[in-house]
Amino acid sequence: MYSNLDKMKKHNFSAGPAILPESVKKQAAKAAYNYKNKGLSLMEMSHRGKDFVGILENTESLVRELLNINDDYAVLFLTGGASTQFYMAAMNLFKDSDKVGYVDTGVWSTKAIKEAKNYCKLQVLASSADKQYSYVPKKYSIPAGLKYLHLTTNNTIYGTQLKSMPKTKVPIIADMSSDIFSRPIKINDYGLIYAGAQKNVGPAGVTLVIVKKQLLGKTKRFIPTMLDYQTHIAKGSSFNTPPVFPIYVTMLNLQWIKSKGGVKAMVDRNKEKANLLYEEIDQNPFFVCPVAKRDRSHMNATFQLTNPKLEKKFLAACKKAGIEGIKGHRIVGGFRASMYNGLELSSVKALTKVMRSL
Amino acid sequence: MYSNLDKMKKHNFSAGPAILPESVKKQAAKAAYNYKNKGLSLMEMSHRGKDFVGILENTESLVRELLNINDDYAVLFLTGGASTQFYMAAMNLFKDSDKVGYVDTGVWSTKAIKEAKNYCKLQVLASSADKQYSYVPKKYSIPAGLKYLHLTTNNTIYGTQLKSMPKTKVPIIADMSSDIFSRPIKINDYGLIYAGAQKNVGPAGVTLVIVKKQLLGKTKRFIPTMLDYQTHIAKGSSFNTPPVFPIYVTMLNLQWIKSKGGVKAMVDRNKEKANLLYEEIDQNPFFVCPVAKRDRSHMNATFQLTNPKLEKKFLAACKKAGIEGIKGHRIVGGFRASMYNGLELSSVKALTKVMRSL
Repeated sequence: MYSNLDKMKKHNFSAGPAILPESVKKQAAKAAYNYKNKGLSLMEMSHRGKDFVGILENTESLVRELLNINDDYAVLFLTGGASTQFYMAAMNLFKDSDKVGYVDTGVWSTKAIKEAKNYCKLQVLASSADKQYSYVPKKYSIPAGLKYLHLTTNNTIYGTQLKSMPKTKVPIIADMSSDIFSRPIKINDYGLIYAGAQKNVGPAGVTLVIVKKQLLGKTKRFIPTMLDYQTHIAKGSSFNTPPVFPIYVTMLNLQWIKSKGGVKAMVDRNKEKANLLYEEIDQNPFFVCPVAKRDRSHMNATFQLTNPKLEKKFLAACKKAGIEGIKGHRIVGGFRASMYNGLELSSVKALTKVMRSL
Repeated sequence: MYSNLDKMKKHNFSAGPAILPESVKKQAAKAAYNYKNKGLSLMEMSHRGKDFVGILENTESLVRELLNINDDYAVLFLTGGASTQFYMAAMNLFKDSDKVGYVDTGVWSTKAIKEAKNYCKLQVLASSADKQYSYVPKKYSIPAGLKYLHLTTNNTIYGTQLKSMPKTKVPIIADMSSDIFSRPIKINDYGLIYAGAQKNVGPAGVTLVIVKKQLLGKTKRFIPTMLDYQTHIAKGSSFNTPPVFPIYVTMLNLQWIKSKGGVKAMVDRNKEKANLLYEEIDQNPFFVCPVAKRDRSHMNATFQLTNPKLEKKFLAACKKAGIEGIKGHRIVGGFRASMYNGLELSSVKALTKVMRSL
């Protein structure tokens, strides 16, 4: 059933759903058919049974351990992706009269702003729209009385990343969908962190939310039961049936990160990969990176051909080398190499080899 | 990796997440590691790529074909379970001034009522709470001017099922989480049907919604983008990243139903299983079924021991025979045998054998 895989080794640069480590896929496949030799698929086992309850607890523990999250914060596994968190975070945290600042660094920030502005006095503090989001705005001031500051820490489409968080005492709400678990965080700087799993956390179908508990329950706004974080905190992410299999694969992925040395080891691993690729782009006359050097993402590198006519040739060479998911997002065109935690350095080497041979 | 499974054949009576056919589990496991020998797990492939787009289209086609759904209706694959549909359906369909009728047949109806009453003038038309929800109320009148009628077609916890829908021209909103695809439906009677997948549709993590398009966009209520059915209709359930793997397993499960003769064949299959079990319960002096005969569910049979002291003995005998998930819901106690489409008659025979040997 699993034969001949080595013969067709693929280099998966997909932006999301994204690469999973080999060992994670193997364990996931086993559990999909016969979980721990119990004669049942994990997908057909009760979410209230001790097997899945253990998985859920273990997944939460791993999140806490890897990101050093203290008990002031709840760790939740929800659904609906970051797109749901755009309004759910706002509904739960903001009063209509609250002044809330958003930094606009691209498509996802823009969507977050659109949803959140219905729940607060929203101010866009800075934007890099003037240069097609090819940099991260840094020179903006935090207005007096600001209640929250919302940031998108990595911009998958444009290939930019916030290398450090602004110095402020205002609690940060961060969309970390595409770079969570790629570096340590100072949890006390945050009010809420959210991330769709399908990039650096696990497969599509589960959304990670980390929220400071004392910030909740203050809006006096009517919130449907399922949209209230407090519901899910009280029920340990099992108010209703959680997405069992995506949570399990998330656990496997976090175990893999831990086995590799944790988030600090991921920093080095991702830096090595990113440096190799950006060096190639900068040295290679056929390619150019549109992103300001200091803001270049270690997760998603965007680049273009200096001669667009070579696109077909380059894509054909990539395909031949087993390189997948290299086309840029339709909004920006060109190419994008996503180098999430699971990607091996050898895959970046395979890509730079193709780039050099053009 | 997959050896010795026959030696430990399990009979899976879990209420949900629930049984999946053997062939579905095998294909799911394969795709979790190496989808169609492409060298990638389906979980690490783009939801915009042609493989998953094909899966999504095929899943929708199967839903339409199996339930005979015409183009007046949209078929959506969302997340958040029926618990999310309790308020999402109400938000999208009801005006504050609308008179909407709910029939209360248990825990899930009660939760649906709690969430929906914030969006309409809700009337509980009938309830079987007077007898611990052990029957389905039938003698109630539909008030003049009623806009919608909400029904829970099968009550997993109590083991009751609506054998026929009330005769009315009022569009029905139906929570079919635990009996969809177990019998044909007359789609034109419905305004909206919703179902968490993890019983008769697929694994946990995806929610099926079938909605009559012309009913949408009339409330003038503010609805966040992700909570508006029209968003998901416009984007073919891919406004954001859908739950890729749960949708794939759903497709496999629907293919299996089709291969067995479709929904009509499921009626016979489920009737045969249910008849065998209920006959045993009624004939066997050790057991009793608390549910009114004509309302007994073909999906979930609830039953009790006449002598509760025998519980340990019975559960031990079940365990020895490979029978799983037989304990009743904590609210009602006793036992529950869920006999969803995927369950084989041989599993019911294994259970009745244990019951007879008590």
